[in-house]
Amino acid sequence: MEITFYPIGVVHSPFMELNDMPIQPVGDHSESGVVEIFDDFTEGLKDIEGFSHIILIYYFHKVEERVLTVIPFLDKQQRGIFATRAPVRPNPIGLSVVRLVERAGSKLKVDDLDILDGTPLLDIKPYIPEFDHRPDAAIGWLEDARGRVAQHRSDERFSG
Amino acid sequence: MEITFYPIGVVHSPFMELNDMPIQPVGDHSESGVVEIFDDFTEGLKDIEGFSHIILIYYFHKVEERVLTVIPFLDKQQRGIFATRAPVRPNPIGLSVVRLVERAGSKLKVDDLDILDGTPLLDIKPYIPEFDHRPDAAIGWLEDARGRVAQHRSDERFSG
Repeated sequence: MEITFYPIGVVHSPFMELNDMPIQPVGDHSESGVVEIFDDFTEGLKDIEGFSHIILIYYFHKVEERVLTVIPFLDKQQRGIFATRAPVRPNPIGLSVVRLVERAGSKLKVDDLDILDGTPLLDIKPYIPEFDHRPDAAIGWLEDARGRVAQHRSDERFSG
Repeated sequence: MEITFYPIGVVHSPFMELNDMPIQPVGDHSESGVVEIFDDFTEGLKDIEGFSHIILIYYFHKVEERVLTVIPFLDKQQRGIFATRAPVRPNPIGLSVVRLVERAGSKLKVDDLDILDGTPLLDIKPYIPEFDHRPDAAIGWLEDARGRVAQHRSDERFSG
């Protein structure tokens, strides 16, 4: 079974290569960028201005490797890929929660960005705490790394 | 540009049709189900047991309609599709945070499920509060509906 999607837009960011990116949006609050929605889909942005945070779902277009276990940035052991957020996944789908600063027509200015420039966007969903918020979630192997995420930047591991 | 993905598994749930489903996992805590990962990908589940919550990314395989505006379950006005979680999206990608109860080999028992039986699974990511948690997010048009989500069930609107 093949499932085919099409980009609804593209991410413009300061990150030109996979090296030296924040490993998740909260990893570095200082970067902002623009999410550009293609004309055919701009009507779908109606009312999005009211949300302070949005979920971006995108395609890791520069990642060619697919693995089932990986040594994550924050660890030294092989972990199952589905227990990590590494991009080298069977289906290279990215997920980031970013802060929506401003909408100007088909362009969304966002903060807390961790996405490579030129990344094809698949979907935008509003972030809704009542649905998406699990403050007390247990985080397995990442427990040791809690608190270190904000300081950490990526290395060459997934830059293929 | 076409982007092609393949199912890594399938969701088994008590929801046999799109009517009368909880509109999001927190909408009804009582339903549980099983996420079955196909043999080729089981190795990727290593270490997932440590996480209490996981993010399921899946394909709305029964949804044929694609629209740019929609009247959401919790509202009476047309809203931009990207300002809603409705399934009738340009790329029908679903996203749910569910509670991981137990792993048995290639099967994950989960709670807080809102996914149709037979849904093809595209990805699993660990839920990590440090990445995914925005407790104070503003929720735009949904502000009026806050608190009503838990009581609400879907109707025939998207069962097409």
